Amino acid sequence: MNDLTFLRQAIQLAREYSRTGKGGPFGAVVVREGEVVGLGRNQVVEALDPTAHAEVLAIRDAARRLGTHLLDDCAIYCSCEPCPMCLSAIYWARIPRVVFAGKGEDAKAAGFDDTLIAQELAFGWKDRALQGDQALGEEGKKVLEEWARDPDRVEY
Amino acid sequence: MNDLTFLRQAIQLAREYSRTGKGGPFGAVVVREGEVVGLGRNQVVEALDPTAHAEVLAIRDAARRLGTHLLDDCAIYCSCEPCPMCLSAIYWARIPRVVFAGKGEDAKAAGFDDTLIAQELAFGWKDRALQGDQALGEEGKKVLEEWARDPDRVEY
Repeated sequence: MNDLTFLRQAIQLAREYSRTGKGGPFGAVVVREGEVVGLGRNQVVEALDPTAHAEVLAIRDAARRLGTHLLDDCAIYCSCEPCPMCLSAIYWARIPRVVFAGKGEDAKAAGFDDTLIAQELAFGWKDRALQGDQALGEEGKKVLEEWARDPDRVEY
Repeated sequence: MNDLTFLRQAIQLAREYSRTGKGGPFGAVVVREGEVVGLGRNQVVEALDPTAHAEVLAIRDAARRLGTHLLDDCAIYCSCEPCPMCLSAIYWARIPRVVFAGKGEDAKAAGFDDTLIAQELAFGWKDRALQGDQALGEEGKKVLEEWARDPDRVEY
């Protein structure tokens, strides 16, 4: 089993599932020590979950199966270049390597444009299309400080 | 019910849950027409899910309860400024407004540093700490093109 085998598996997930008319054409597999430990395909519409991208679901599947939220010994194979949400999820999961087939520009040509999100993330709040209001700063800060001082806190 | 009420509810979720020692000090609520329609608190460790941030779970809860993956008539109230993953999820859910209490720098001071992720997202692949390899570009592109041509495709 090598990179291309796993990548084709991710592409196959994308193709098979999107042909059912239930989801978008995206698939992903998480691999650990040469073994597939997580699978995902885009289920945003079917699961009524805006976060149910293929990569997010593959990460959730792998973490559940392996019994850990830390996937630092895994790689993720994606039918298409991950969007900013999935890329961030990959960082949070500590996955050190991504292999992808289609490029972001291919997804854009098919009608999936996450360029706006990437641009917005690079902006500060005052320049974003998304309205961001901040209030109760001290109360918000306090709950974080309390946590940092708590000897029984769960670290992650 | 006004902004501060919902924001305090998000902070209270963060405080109560992190005091149990089960999760991190983050909470979020999704509100539609003055009513709370989604709740979330950080459950990364408890749920063994690296994507189980408060905002992601509040969005998933709201979408499930409302029966739609489009939350464009909602606002989200967060105990702390959303990380890049959650911010991207908010865009994908089409939520037009975010209200937050703690700032990213407060989370960083408490040990949660998503500055690295924001920096990495702004880089291209060759400059990222995350290894990104691309292969099978034509196969990856083809599955997207097939989908775009399919009259029975699910749009979202």
